[in-house]
Amino acid sequence: MHTHSITAPTSGTPETSLETLETPCLVLDVERMERNVARLQNRLGQLGVTLRPHLKTAKSVEVARRVMASPEGPATVSTLKEAEQFAAAGVRDMIYAVGIVPSKLARVAGLRARGVDLIVVVDSVEQAQAVSDASRSSGVRIPAMIEVDCDGHRSGVAPGNQASLLAIGKELASGAELRGVLTHAGDSYRGGGAKAQEHYAEVERKAVVDAAQALRAADLPCPVVSVGSTPTAHHAQNLDGVTEVRAGVFVFFDLVMAGIGICEVDDIALSVLATVIGHQREKGWIITDGGWMSLSRDRGTSKQAVDQGYGLVCDLMGHVYPDLIMSDANQEHGILALRPGSTGRLPDLAVGDRVRILPNHACATGAQHDVYHVVRGPSQLVEARWARFGGW
Amino acid sequence: MHTHSITAPTSGTPETSLETLETPCLVLDVERMERNVARLQNRLGQLGVTLRPHLKTAKSVEVARRVMASPEGPATVSTLKEAEQFAAAGVRDMIYAVGIVPSKLARVAGLRARGVDLIVVVDSVEQAQAVSDASRSSGVRIPAMIEVDCDGHRSGVAPGNQASLLAIGKELASGAELRGVLTHAGDSYRGGGAKAQEHYAEVERKAVVDAAQALRAADLPCPVVSVGSTPTAHHAQNLDGVTEVRAGVFVFFDLVMAGIGICEVDDIALSVLATVIGHQREKGWIITDGGWMSLSRDRGTSKQAVDQGYGLVCDLMGHVYPDLIMSDANQEHGILALRPGSTGRLPDLAVGDRVRILPNHACATGAQHDVYHVVRGPSQLVEARWARFGGW
Repeated sequence: MHTHSITAPTSGTPETSLETLETPCLVLDVERMERNVARLQNRLGQLGVTLRPHLKTAKSVEVARRVMASPEGPATVSTLKEAEQFAAAGVRDMIYAVGIVPSKLARVAGLRARGVDLIVVVDSVEQAQAVSDASRSSGVRIPAMIEVDCDGHRSGVAPGNQASLLAIGKELASGAELRGVLTHAGDSYRGGGAKAQEHYAEVERKAVVDAAQALRAADLPCPVVSVGSTPTAHHAQNLDGVTEVRAGVFVFFDLVMAGIGICEVDDIALSVLATVIGHQREKGWIITDGGWMSLSRDRGTSKQAVDQGYGLVCDLMGHVYPDLIMSDANQEHGILALRPGSTGRLPDLAVGDRVRILPNHACATGAQHDVYHVVRGPSQLVEARWARFGGW
Repeated sequence: MHTHSITAPTSGTPETSLETLETPCLVLDVERMERNVARLQNRLGQLGVTLRPHLKTAKSVEVARRVMASPEGPATVSTLKEAEQFAAAGVRDMIYAVGIVPSKLARVAGLRARGVDLIVVVDSVEQAQAVSDASRSSGVRIPAMIEVDCDGHRSGVAPGNQASLLAIGKELASGAELRGVLTHAGDSYRGGGAKAQEHYAEVERKAVVDAAQALRAADLPCPVVSVGSTPTAHHAQNLDGVTEVRAGVFVFFDLVMAGIGICEVDDIALSVLATVIGHQREKGWIITDGGWMSLSRDRGTSKQAVDQGYGLVCDLMGHVYPDLIMSDANQEHGILALRPGSTGRLPDLAVGDRVRILPNHACATGAQHDVYHVVRGPSQLVEARWARFGGW
């Protein structure tokens, strides 16, 4: 088990400057995070739905506490490790939003026996029967949501497949607990602007609302109607019939989200601090100690209008260097260069100077680190270290 | 600090079967690993050079002990965390093969003061002066290698730039210790067959041998002449003048190495164990709980002749399912499908069935896990759990 203690704030000591941290490391601008969280909470409040933040991006108790509506939740998780870690920190209401493996139901039942309302997800009668079997053998009715595949993106019952939906619903209602329906608009990551996002959001909404109506028409319960993706959460105009929204990456945002217009670059709260280790001046390269191990192999902007390489480079205060990207990476070497076609000039950075690199994908970059170095305000001094965990 | 204890072998108990491990998790076929290691050790022995294995791929004391010539080394590392972890386990001879950041020299001096022959790498006079300064202030002469950029791939002094090479060498020899020269044939990952690899190996050899001669002609010492990449290590025909070879990924191999003909698929010793969570039968998809978090975002085969998606799928015994790849990934969802154009058929896998996925890139996939589940022989039973570490 990881510990969740925060190192006491160390303001006033030399350790608080980004100049003195060991590099590479992960930096979290907590003011940007707070702004991102407040924006979505306010938006969903106006739409009359609950935010059930997806903690797969953060994987940190300290971040979770600043994102959830209460210390007990609600929340969404992507692994049972997350469920167990957050349960140990007091979270009591979680959806484990990946189709359940029958052999994992013992861990689920264990958490439920400790008072955690952990909800699983299924999209087949086979899985529903496994949930029923586990409910019977543990003596605890395990609640499950039925996943609907609103846009052909991944898992879930096809929206038109009412026979399958009802068969799963009946199995859960009789042997376990049918808690509701859930979907995820994977298409929304393709972008396309506000109108496209409004469309994806409506496809997402309609898929689960229709499924909920079909279940209720068959006298089955469906208290929870859950949608979720960061892009649609920021563009949905109407969430009638939806009870909650799941979203994760909005907490930190990233270049992929900026690339499809869901945030501004200045909203991105995560960066990787790296140190210059050399130059290849005739090639226009600056080399750093931040390679793909610290940024991840995610190249999510490679198919967007603006390819950001492995990330967009900022100075120590978090201001973007125009056109400077991390153009290539080895395991522990990053290559910084002006983006192709740029008429700008390379900043004058010496060996030992430091930069901050905004990531393509906050979930992937965060996963490469076990601590957030938390900075705040104009000083960008480090005010805390928050543990994060990985694994399953 | 991570612990390095091995869980005692548990043969005969139910925990030893791959059927009962929590998924996703990392599996290491130790017989394949031993075969890979023996092959390169034998090859380099015949060529009369020392193998200095790069432990950045393994990040595990237990693996390191099976790869190094002795418990004291020699070895190569990519982070000071690796240097410190391996030093704590008794390794005494390491090159930290990433250009040194001046602020990291205090940690280097600390390891040297504890009897570890840790060698740093520089490619500028600026860095050499920092190494000299740190040597003076710590009272310990820190040895450094000069990196040569044999093929324009990354860091290093250009092969023709004798003025820079000698200036760095003089600075090190006067204020620190000039240990030698080192290069890495990044080009070799492009593949091209045996003749191309022999060429890359000769470019690599010539770059450092020429640099060593230039240093010696200027009355500077150059005891160590180091080359290193897994492809060239397996194809070099002549290593005259070279004293050692660094290589890392050869321990496990991966689909990128198989794609350029450096190994066979059956040599790949690492795989990710995953469980089927669902189907989208009309699309020909099988969904698993092994997403990009467990495989990494590495898509290193995407530009090779055969694109393996996120990995090649095997059964529980490690036999490849013909044409079945992990075609797409979410964070904790993997999509398995037949490769485009295949005339094969999807294997009949039910929810709860397990597969093993061979990775594109062993370094990236390993980094997503903190333990190797070690299997051996025809039974593929788990005989040990070996800890691995990450971080800096």
